[in-house]
Amino acid sequence: MPAHWFSRLCLACGMLFAPTILMSSSADPDLMPLPMSLQRETGVFRLTPGFRVGFATGQDDRLTRAVSRTLRAWEERSGLEFSRNSSGDYLPAANVASAGLVIECAKDAAEFPQLGEDESYTLIVTPEQVRLRAATGRGVLHGLATLQQWLQGDASGWHLPAVTIEDRPRFAWRGLMIDVCRHWQPLPVIKRNLDAMALVKLNVLHIHLTEDQGFRIESKTFPRLHEQGSDGNYFTQDEMRELIAYAADRGIRVVPEFDMPGHATSWLVGYPELGSAPGPYVIERKWGIFNPVLDPTNEETYRLLEGFLGEMAALFPDPYLHIGGDENNGVHWSANAKIQAFIREHQLKDNAGLHAWFNTRVNAILVRHGKRLVGWDEILHPDLPAGSVVHSWRGPEGIAEATARGFATILSNGYYIDLMHPTADHYLNDPIPPGSRLTPAQQSLVLGGEATMWSEWVSPETIDSRIWPRTAAIAERLWSDASARDVPEMYRRLQSVSQRLEEAGLGHMSYLDPALRRLAGVPVSPAELDDLRAFVDLVEPVKVYQRGQQQPAATQFTPLTGVVDCARADSEPARRFKDAVDALLKNPYSPEAVAVVEGQLASWMELARRLQQGVVSRSPRLQEVGPLLDAMREAGGIGQDALGVLAGGQPPSADWAAGRLAELKRIAQPHAAVELPFMPSIRRLIEAAAAPKL
Amino acid sequence: MPAHWFSRLCLACGMLFAPTILMSSSADPDLMPLPMSLQRETGVFRLTPGFRVGFATGQDDRLTRAVSRTLRAWEERSGLEFSRNSSGDYLPAANVASAGLVIECAKDAAEFPQLGEDESYTLIVTPEQVRLRAATGRGVLHGLATLQQWLQGDASGWHLPAVTIEDRPRFAWRGLMIDVCRHWQPLPVIKRNLDAMALVKLNVLHIHLTEDQGFRIESKTFPRLHEQGSDGNYFTQDEMRELIAYAADRGIRVVPEFDMPGHATSWLVGYPELGSAPGPYVIERKWGIFNPVLDPTNEETYRLLEGFLGEMAALFPDPYLHIGGDENNGVHWSANAKIQAFIREHQLKDNAGLHAWFNTRVNAILVRHGKRLVGWDEILHPDLPAGSVVHSWRGPEGIAEATARGFATILSNGYYIDLMHPTADHYLNDPIPPGSRLTPAQQSLVLGGEATMWSEWVSPETIDSRIWPRTAAIAERLWSDASARDVPEMYRRLQSVSQRLEEAGLGHMSYLDPALRRLAGVPVSPAELDDLRAFVDLVEPVKVYQRGQQQPAATQFTPLTGVVDCARADSEPARRFKDAVDALLKNPYSPEAVAVVEGQLASWMELARRLQQGVVSRSPRLQEVGPLLDAMREAGGIGQDALGVLAGGQPPSADWAAGRLAELKRIAQPHAAVELPFMPSIRRLIEAAAAPKL
Repeated sequence: MPAHWFSRLCLACGMLFAPTILMSSSADPDLMPLPMSLQRETGVFRLTPGFRVGFATGQDDRLTRAVSRTLRAWEERSGLEFSRNSSGDYLPAANVASAGLVIECAKDAAEFPQLGEDESYTLIVTPEQVRLRAATGRGVLHGLATLQQWLQGDASGWHLPAVTIEDRPRFAWRGLMIDVCRHWQPLPVIKRNLDAMALVKLNVLHIHLTEDQGFRIESKTFPRLHEQGSDGNYFTQDEMRELIAYAADRGIRVVPEFDMPGHATSWLVGYPELGSAPGPYVIERKWGIFNPVLDPTNEETYRLLEGFLGEMAALFPDPYLHIGGDENNGVHWSANAKIQAFIREHQLKDNAGLHAWFNTRVNAILVRHGKRLVGWDEILHPDLPAGSVVHSWRGPEGIAEATARGFATILSNGYYIDLMHPTADHYLNDPIPPGSRLTPAQQSLVLGGEATMWSEWVSPETIDSRIWPRTAAIAERLWSDASARDVPEMYRRLQSVSQRLEEAGLGHMSYLDPALRRLAGVPVSPAELDDLRAFVDLVEPVKVYQRGQQQPAATQFTPLTGVVDCARADSEPARRFKDAVDALLKNPYSPEAVAVVEGQLASWMELARRLQQGVVSRSPRLQEVGPLLDAMREAGGIGQDALGVLAGGQPPSADWAAGRLAELKRIAQPHAAVELPFMPSIRRLIEAAAAPKL
Repeated sequence: MPAHWFSRLCLACGMLFAPTILMSSSADPDLMPLPMSLQRETGVFRLTPGFRVGFATGQDDRLTRAVSRTLRAWEERSGLEFSRNSSGDYLPAANVASAGLVIECAKDAAEFPQLGEDESYTLIVTPEQVRLRAATGRGVLHGLATLQQWLQGDASGWHLPAVTIEDRPRFAWRGLMIDVCRHWQPLPVIKRNLDAMALVKLNVLHIHLTEDQGFRIESKTFPRLHEQGSDGNYFTQDEMRELIAYAADRGIRVVPEFDMPGHATSWLVGYPELGSAPGPYVIERKWGIFNPVLDPTNEETYRLLEGFLGEMAALFPDPYLHIGGDENNGVHWSANAKIQAFIREHQLKDNAGLHAWFNTRVNAILVRHGKRLVGWDEILHPDLPAGSVVHSWRGPEGIAEATARGFATILSNGYYIDLMHPTADHYLNDPIPPGSRLTPAQQSLVLGGEATMWSEWVSPETIDSRIWPRTAAIAERLWSDASARDVPEMYRRLQSVSQRLEEAGLGHMSYLDPALRRLAGVPVSPAELDDLRAFVDLVEPVKVYQRGQQQPAATQFTPLTGVVDCARADSEPARRFKDAVDALLKNPYSPEAVAVVEGQLASWMELARRLQQGVVSRSPRLQEVGPLLDAMREAGGIGQDALGVLAGGQPPSADWAAGRLAELKRIAQPHAAVELPFMPSIRRLIEAAAAPKL
């Protein structure tokens, strides 16, 4: 893929345009991602039951369906009803002049979304009319997504504030990867996430279809792949076509991943002869890096790949096909004398060389079927075929190295939403960060990024709450101008978009109460449910790969119904507490600042006491939160002590702080794979109390 | 169907056994439906990760799957993990002696559940082992459903209290009808309701598949039926087979209904030549009784029915097939000279005679295909073919008349859950009420009953909250002994079963918060959400057919996202208020009783004030609740006045009560299809205050 092609792409994406956001009122609807340019005008366009949509140019079935979805969402939100004909279709405007919304679409888009298409749109809302112009249907879809967020209600009714928005994406590849292998995620889960993606203008669903723990796509040529590798949980090809069409309707490409040569246990259950060790193989049930790996020295392996990838190339219309390539530990290759002999014979140097040789063979298959190869970091080897795309997961160096060698790249390092980092971390993680040392040519090879939802610890019930709303902030990073880095403002807008995402069908908020009722296991009063909600709002799942360390015996069958599954990343109360401590430490003698911190500590201690005396004392499963509640109360007491010292002057003794910090460290240990994210703020209170006074 | 067959059936159902419930502790798990006999023993059986299930006799794939579902539900509830093999199947007990649960199933059940099968089971829990015995697999399923409710947790862990339960149903036909036509309800909705049905031992899903507003089943012989009659929303035959198998796995028969000759607009869209008026026909979008009706004088009608019903007879394994037959208004028949001539020619007397003649023809088709005819009340005509089953919806007379003439019957009158009556009404509505005048022979013809979920006003989001938990009380009426009529006790147990139903996958509770957030349409604080929840808990949708009067312009496309869709039948706070008023009126000088009523009134007035000053003042859609909040505040004031009079002695004037009652009547008008169910209790306070003092 020649570099100049990407330069054109970036021009099309508007990377050279500076953003202009001229808000005339803070009461305007919140948008996420922020548009490239927004100019508020005077007045509002009022939504009435007579509202109709007209196309000036470019109407097609896909856009008609998109308009119908927008109108239906507005009906369900507003309670208004727009006119329909007897077939149930919304009546179009009689003519452009009388239309409430006029759409101008300059040219037909390809049937399936393509990387680098013109996705720009212009939206002009006046009190008289709404006009949406785009070069392609894809831009129209984005404009409708903006409109969906821009509709606002107050006691006087529903309206769209007058505005002129000129918008286009910064990056062309804005993805969400969903791993449907480790825990199976059926069609409805994917569909509702596609609806959510469209709302925040993500345009790539990267679907991770094969893993040690499951082979999730029907193969008609090699049926033992899904029959023996999936426990019966896989997408039929009909279902996948349905999903691809559903995604295309929303302007979203579907890029499939078939992970090879490692992460391939499930392939080998039905075809053990293609493994690098004798087998037999059974579907892997645990988490980690495993030894089973395809045998790249066996010509039968390529016969299977030729057949299977050919089948998949026909099924998936997108030109990009992800072959994984990560975490091949080489154990079975090293242990196999025939394979080692092959390496020597072909002068491949080592296992890495064999892996690159394998990639070259696979690439040839892909090229024959009209596909471009995408793979994780590890595919980057001197022999990587030109035109491949490197998907960087291990660190920003991956981007630098790949682009230096002329490969296009996608960033996922920093977007691993399964690791439970706070939204702000992902938001500030830029594929081309401020002050990047990438040359312009290298920058032009950075296609975008993908949030990655690995599914060791998610069920269909919890997955929405792990992906959202954080992924909306990643979507903004990939769509909006690089200068959009105001974190508090992002968090404020995230609350609005979260509500819109729920309306689009996600269960990321509503899953919680049923989960808490089940967790309690005994009848809970409404007040107790409020307390449980307050508790899980205050805690967070442990981060990075700590959950696996906390729950080492976990398997694919472990119920994901514990307190950790009710907790979500990025506790808002803990963030507010940090802000309160920041304010206090800036101004330690302010009684108001002390009172805020004091009040939060007291309320948590009281919450912990109520829970322990109430529902926790009755519930079998809530026994696991006992140590966390103890820690909340003790930490609260330590914080109160520190406040006393800050107010009163001197610590009681020289080693007071050391003792408190040691105590804090002890009680800050996670339990039940859950941690207390306000602990660092309490540590700062102690340190401030112990610091020499001015 | 000879009467003696039903007598045997009733014996099998245990109608002659008296119930014995010997509870040793009120802290025992709540069961619904109540078993016929329950004897608590000493001790508990503790659930541990080593728990395994063994079959003494009668294991088959269906029962193995049922056991797996129970174990999975227990894992998700308890967080325990039971052992599995590498295929993911639970390890069976090595032998019966070491099993935690031993199942003895005397004989294979037929592949599909049958009316009148032996559904009895015996469950014996000792501290050492759980034993479940049943004559058939269907009894085993019921025993597992009981176990699922009987599992209990406390701070010491999970256990099953020792008990001996002997159980069998009072009625053999215990159904839920779902209308998937007026509003389409896709497969996942039906599946989760089947799971819920199994938990409360319902055994018939009556699925209403054709209506004026939609033809919801694929026909391969007459494809224009579903192609032109459904807007694309129908079950394929593959999906229906999947659903039937899913139901059979849970011991549930699927009885399809194809409503004819009326309620048939959707049939005629594709086949207008079979209508009694010239056509053309379009899918009906409004609610009510419409004129389109099949032409029973056209032989082509029977050719279509022969083909279509033959196809359906092959698709649905149950021997019963429901042909509707209700609400044929005869308008198009009366207007059609050819049809009227046919009536005269065949000496059919009138349209009713023609309808009966049609039924006879249809019955002949059904008999040829091995099916028995079921139809609504209206099919009862002197010419109704023997062996038909009359489904009574209009009143208890239907049951009396049909059984007097030797027809078997099912009761739905009194079980119309779409009409929003309180649970207690349905609960006390007995197919054979206490003091029934039906002869024993007539009683033996009462097969059971069905809750009916007509879908004019339900969407896939709200349907669970309309069906449940009230239908659990109907399930108890149909399963448990006739003497189970303790209403407060029923309401108490309903709360527990509601929680179990949620765990089984229903959204009847969790749908509410998202619905309230959408209804508000503007950002709401957690406290405001609590207030909105308290408000909709206090109100109820209007009853019977009032919603259609309140929303006369409503169609199939009207968004079902208003405050009425958030409100549920049977407000618990209103019931508690009635209890408090009862207590007060029994003892009007008790300061405690006055304080309770006073406190509830004050809290509602305060709630209304907070909502009006807060979220309601900002929200476009909540404007519709303004009059209801005004009424809450005014009614609260009137109630307080009455309390003052009750406490102080005399009303301020002779016409005080009349004025208050008139005022109350005025403000008690429903708004937004919602009513304030505590109004009658306030009226009672006024009347008591105005009554001559002793």
